[in-house]
Amino acid sequence: MDHTHNPEAVSWLNTANQPESDFPLQNLPLCLFDRDSGDGPAAGMGIGDQVLNLRRARPLLDLPASIGEALSASRLNALFALGRPALTALRHAAWSLLERDSQHSVAARACLVPQADVRLLLPCDVGDYTDFFASLHHARNTFNLFRPGQVFLPNFQHLPIAYHGRASSIVVSGHALRRPLGQTRDTPVQNPKFGPTRKLDFEVELGVYVGRGNALGEAISIDEAEQHMAGVSILNDWSARDVQAFESQPLGPFLSKNFLSSVAPWVVSLDALEPFRSAPAPREEGAPPLQAYLDSITHRAKGAFDIHIETRLQTQAMRDQGLSPERVSHASAARDLYWTPAQMFAHHTVGGCNLRTGDFLGSGTISGPDAGTEGSLIELTHGGTQAITLPNGERRTFLEDGDEVSMHAWCERPGFRRIGLGRCLTRITNARSSV
Amino acid sequence: MDHTHNPEAVSWLNTANQPESDFPLQNLPLCLFDRDSGDGPAAGMGIGDQVLNLRRARPLLDLPASIGEALSASRLNALFALGRPALTALRHAAWSLLERDSQHSVAARACLVPQADVRLLLPCDVGDYTDFFASLHHARNTFNLFRPGQVFLPNFQHLPIAYHGRASSIVVSGHALRRPLGQTRDTPVQNPKFGPTRKLDFEVELGVYVGRGNALGEAISIDEAEQHMAGVSILNDWSARDVQAFESQPLGPFLSKNFLSSVAPWVVSLDALEPFRSAPAPREEGAPPLQAYLDSITHRAKGAFDIHIETRLQTQAMRDQGLSPERVSHASAARDLYWTPAQMFAHHTVGGCNLRTGDFLGSGTISGPDAGTEGSLIELTHGGTQAITLPNGERRTFLEDGDEVSMHAWCERPGFRRIGLGRCLTRITNARSSV
Repeated sequence: MDHTHNPEAVSWLNTANQPESDFPLQNLPLCLFDRDSGDGPAAGMGIGDQVLNLRRARPLLDLPASIGEALSASRLNALFALGRPALTALRHAAWSLLERDSQHSVAARACLVPQADVRLLLPCDVGDYTDFFASLHHARNTFNLFRPGQVFLPNFQHLPIAYHGRASSIVVSGHALRRPLGQTRDTPVQNPKFGPTRKLDFEVELGVYVGRGNALGEAISIDEAEQHMAGVSILNDWSARDVQAFESQPLGPFLSKNFLSSVAPWVVSLDALEPFRSAPAPREEGAPPLQAYLDSITHRAKGAFDIHIETRLQTQAMRDQGLSPERVSHASAARDLYWTPAQMFAHHTVGGCNLRTGDFLGSGTISGPDAGTEGSLIELTHGGTQAITLPNGERRTFLEDGDEVSMHAWCERPGFRRIGLGRCLTRITNARSSV
Repeated sequence: MDHTHNPEAVSWLNTANQPESDFPLQNLPLCLFDRDSGDGPAAGMGIGDQVLNLRRARPLLDLPASIGEALSASRLNALFALGRPALTALRHAAWSLLERDSQHSVAARACLVPQADVRLLLPCDVGDYTDFFASLHHARNTFNLFRPGQVFLPNFQHLPIAYHGRASSIVVSGHALRRPLGQTRDTPVQNPKFGPTRKLDFEVELGVYVGRGNALGEAISIDEAEQHMAGVSILNDWSARDVQAFESQPLGPFLSKNFLSSVAPWVVSLDALEPFRSAPAPREEGAPPLQAYLDSITHRAKGAFDIHIETRLQTQAMRDQGLSPERVSHASAARDLYWTPAQMFAHHTVGGCNLRTGDFLGSGTISGPDAGTEGSLIELTHGGTQAITLPNGERRTFLEDGDEVSMHAWCERPGFRRIGLGRCLTRITNARSSV
């Protein structure tokens, strides 16, 4: 850790110093934004309630030319491709510009734009999207729902299970979700019917963007893995449970997932997360030994990140009645993920698969062991059998049109400034009426 | 059909008129090639044993400016994005330039370069790669191997099963395959071991490139589907069967597939395939009714394409002994695919998923009902229990280092000129020695 993690440091921008802000001087997450001014998308950095326009601020930042050029690109891919040292250099330069004693605070203020006035965009072109299945509680919960009575997955504790997701339908917070259609059936003897899903669900996940990639045929070792991470974000991997139940054998989910995945617009760097590292969750007694490529001394000490994610639900009626969104889930990445991001990178590449800059890896639903820590409605409602009751008396098993789901994530630890990952917010709209 | 399908038409280029050529005047497949001349990749078209440099030939082609501009791009995505009418216009313009009575044959000859002198590249940037599971024989064969005694998949005849594949590791014919590593175990009670796969296999597939895409939330109807196809290619979807057996539950294959997928360099247009259309394979007696979105009168009449794919194997010893590659499989897309490309497009988008220009859809392994028509070694050798014997007495269950697998596809029908899809050729190299 270094001076950028000092909890006493403050900015000349007052909103960054408010205790409830997600974006203090210690955070400095990246984003891509558009002011509709005709300049096109620009790289930005979150500070307080503002975005620092990095393209405009470039002359004020003491940076090598390669980083300056990357800041002029219309996506963050060019910046991510420069790797961790460049992201650290940018963090340090921005910290110096934004801290209270900066020599350039007047000029820097002219590069700020209120977050409320900009459109935050998907930060980079995502080439491939991979979704893991890294929470043991989630795996057990859903296994018991989809395959009652069967012996639990023999591979789960040996390797981070994953599948390839759909990159084209990743959208940023604020993008509406149109209820998808698909084939479903109520009983195994029925012919399926086609129509809008009746079991629309969210999934609380943590996502990691790939910075520098690896060559096809070469692996990334567990101790190198974090050098290949550009940063983390909140991911809501929407699921249509009734479609999933019918289609998923033998090759996994397809239409039940590929209609939309939503991410928060902010990319929080591994530097910002440094104070919130922890040992991975302890493996259960009797767990098999880890393969060498999934284990290291450093990783055992601090391979995980202590990130909290809260999910809130607000129905149309609640909005009409002026009721606040109701918390329905509170998960913890460090406690509830059996596999860490570094293990995911090491496993993904160990067979020779190449990761490319901008690729996105989701953790899979993060569910804890206790009631209220489950990261999806199918778990929270025990397969739709036990509805949640909302403050106005409405009940939900799965999501209805007009419902709005918002996820918020943050890190906190005594002795450090709390930082946030921002929000991922989505409203459900009705299904397309015809094929 | 039109004058470009006339089987009597010939080119001023003699090699195009030889009966065994894959690339007569009636075919005109697209490609992307590089001469290492410093000009970078250029769009090309296969004719006889030559490539027509479309960027150089542009002044000789009577085409709208939009198509001319797309021909100057460094990938075929820009051309594909213009949609079927543009691809048809390009075919017609190139046909006129290359046919015997062309006014510009002298100038056009200066735009030719021997296929043997160029490097053929992956034709476009592939955003997302989807692999279907569209052959009923393949599905039954592999189901019986992986899940003996269980009831066959209840969803297979209701929808085209598919999973998302890995776009980053798609390579073109000629790219070596480095044997992948992964976790495998010989018996269900064992802890898995980590090392090079011992069950490396090929998969014979047909692939389709997306031309014009669709918007997120909107579907492509079965009768519109072919307007969204840029063309077809041969796909070899490499598989590590021992890795697959251990990792695939519950979310499908991951490391067992994502180390490499190989495609032929040619993109054969749907116009070129028009004479080789056929009705889809008849559904079995007792098959359930099709959902409306997977059915249409036009589709019933000619939704399938009659394409033959042969796979040959040549070991290092066979090369040393001067022995030709031995045919190990002969599949037929029309006979052996239960679902057609149009049904794949309709199903992929019916839930709202967006396809983007350059996306790639594989058919899944094409296997027929008879011995020798299976599209993978795991099927041909009955799960590795019955080895294939090669002409020099060598035996194979799965692939060994030094083996070379080549796939060749073509269409033929009485009254029409035979056309080919070219070859997809890959040599296996030894695994990485360390993690």
